[in-house]
Amino acid sequence: MNQVQHGGDIYRNKIRYDFSVNLNPLGMPSGVVKVLQEQAGDWGCYPDPECRRLVDELARLHQVPETFLLCGNGAADLIFQLVQAVRPARAVVPAPAFLEYQQALKAAGCVTEHVLPQGDPGEHGWRILPASLAGYIRDLTDGCDLVFFCNPNNPTGALATIEELEPLLAQCQRQQAFLVIDECFCALTEHPEGASVIRLTKDYENLVVLRAFTKTYAMAGLRLGYAVTGNKALLDRMRSIRQPWSVSLPAQQAGLAALKETTYLDESRRLLVRERSWLKEQLTALGFRVFPSAANYLLFRTPFPDHDRTLWETMRTQGILIRDCADFHGLGPGYYRTCVSTREKNRILIERLASYMTEHNASCHQP
Amino acid sequence: MNQVQHGGDIYRNKIRYDFSVNLNPLGMPSGVVKVLQEQAGDWGCYPDPECRRLVDELARLHQVPETFLLCGNGAADLIFQLVQAVRPARAVVPAPAFLEYQQALKAAGCVTEHVLPQGDPGEHGWRILPASLAGYIRDLTDGCDLVFFCNPNNPTGALATIEELEPLLAQCQRQQAFLVIDECFCALTEHPEGASVIRLTKDYENLVVLRAFTKTYAMAGLRLGYAVTGNKALLDRMRSIRQPWSVSLPAQQAGLAALKETTYLDESRRLLVRERSWLKEQLTALGFRVFPSAANYLLFRTPFPDHDRTLWETMRTQGILIRDCADFHGLGPGYYRTCVSTREKNRILIERLASYMTEHNASCHQP
Repeated sequence: MNQVQHGGDIYRNKIRYDFSVNLNPLGMPSGVVKVLQEQAGDWGCYPDPECRRLVDELARLHQVPETFLLCGNGAADLIFQLVQAVRPARAVVPAPAFLEYQQALKAAGCVTEHVLPQGDPGEHGWRILPASLAGYIRDLTDGCDLVFFCNPNNPTGALATIEELEPLLAQCQRQQAFLVIDECFCALTEHPEGASVIRLTKDYENLVVLRAFTKTYAMAGLRLGYAVTGNKALLDRMRSIRQPWSVSLPAQQAGLAALKETTYLDESRRLLVRERSWLKEQLTALGFRVFPSAANYLLFRTPFPDHDRTLWETMRTQGILIRDCADFHGLGPGYYRTCVSTREKNRILIERLASYMTEHNASCHQP
Repeated sequence: MNQVQHGGDIYRNKIRYDFSVNLNPLGMPSGVVKVLQEQAGDWGCYPDPECRRLVDELARLHQVPETFLLCGNGAADLIFQLVQAVRPARAVVPAPAFLEYQQALKAAGCVTEHVLPQGDPGEHGWRILPASLAGYIRDLTDGCDLVFFCNPNNPTGALATIEELEPLLAQCQRQQAFLVIDECFCALTEHPEGASVIRLTKDYENLVVLRAFTKTYAMAGLRLGYAVTGNKALLDRMRSIRQPWSVSLPAQQAGLAALKETTYLDESRRLLVRERSWLKEQLTALGFRVFPSAANYLLFRTPFPDHDRTLWETMRTQGILIRDCADFHGLGPGYYRTCVSTREKNRILIERLASYMTEHNASCHQP
């Protein structure tokens, strides 16, 4: 059985509990499901290419002009369009990071520099300070056309504040490099307003913010994300290299319905704060090294010196999927990511991990 | 009010009857709607990136290996990916044709030659013989990397047989040019098996066939299309330049449900043969010039020598949308396309067009 490249591959695995995807543990809001069931009969029509109703609502929510918004078939779709539109010669991506940045850059023939945190990752939780990244970019002899920065970062969960991001914003502007801040997990952090740079798109024309409904509202199957930027030329170029009907009608309708779910979001955030803390405690007690996270997932490492990769397979055979992070640039065998779920499910994960640790420790100590 | 670039723009128009989109007049099969309503609660999961279940069924249907298939977010999505993957320097597109070919080629910086039918279009119904096209390509001094051929053609409805297509297939193979045959409307012709070149993908590695569920099953809002080719390297390249989750879960589930609807398809074809003939007769009786069509739509031209463009606007103000074809390369003012619908709706169209003709004739003859 091969390890999977992405989370959520429940199609090649018999899975009862999927901790490998970072979706809202409350599941898709029932109000969204209801709208979808009611509207299914109307999906014979073409979707609105401009997603006008959704764009109006998003503009109101984020207090930006409608012209700043472009919806896509999931945020991953926009990552590829953005890279194809910019066609950067050189890009910088902090590591570890979401694999699609690298895939999209590679497909466009771009030279990519991966910047790793310095020193012991345990101390700073795989955290790359935007100021250090700004310094790194400034010192690049061949320059840089595009920088990806995921905030909070996937798979580490590290979160930079707006104040911390400012040197990076300024440096990218000076160098006329696009700065793409991926905020796909931002809405599920404790204080989303405090971390989002969306309002700065009015000041920095080279700034692009990515957002997704996928994780926030647990609607990964529907595919809906959006980009926010004051750079109209970039959005026009992105539109020109894709089909007009990228965003399906169910996705647009689900998006509109989801934006009404404010209580659901508040409840999700409260649950995540509580459960992340509990899960971290439990994992630590089992002997795992758990890295600090502001997101709805946790990066952890096995305590075994050989960092063997049996954990993933052992869990899978029990119908549990976690994310093996060995393939992330900068990480390696022994790193895993789990989403933060409900207490009931988190407890199941912890129980199975506890059994694994007991057995593993026993087998290691056998003569 | 601007004319619209594509059919189906019911979002900027108050429309009661949309004849501008070429969808199956029976509407989305009720079996598909039912599956969607039942499954809506499960769309929190990521879709299968490989669309394995759907690919299996399509491979069985078309009797090709599974490795020949790639699903996309509508056929238009695949057109853009194909062009980005091939990055042709020079392409040939018969005119008039679906605008997205040109858009996708332009976005990739490709030089495009538009080949027009020769002589009076009325005689051959805007029909470009594949053999003439093959001759044209052979004689190009700078060569050609890619040819689009829509069969039946949109917006004309002209259909070439497999025998007619063979010289073009052979010529493209000799020149190592990709031949993309867009069969998005093929399943709704009277004898779809007789016109499809899908089985020839085993013999011609440079052949790519495009198909869509959009029109065949009237599910335009869901976005689902697929490419069939024996060129594995091309499909791999297309995969590499797009996100893994292009095809949503509702689209995959709807596709699977739609493939079971064989009675629906037979019924659709019978209705279309009958209604196309009736509609053509009526349009001709009103004085329009109607071009021969094997598809579920008709191209027609106003009889007025000035070919004024008031027809579209007059219809729109009455809540009826038809496709103004003035923006198609090779066509111009006075050309319109209507889908073939049910008798009830076709009758409404004919009644409104009859009123328009009466008024227009009266106003033309006023002193």
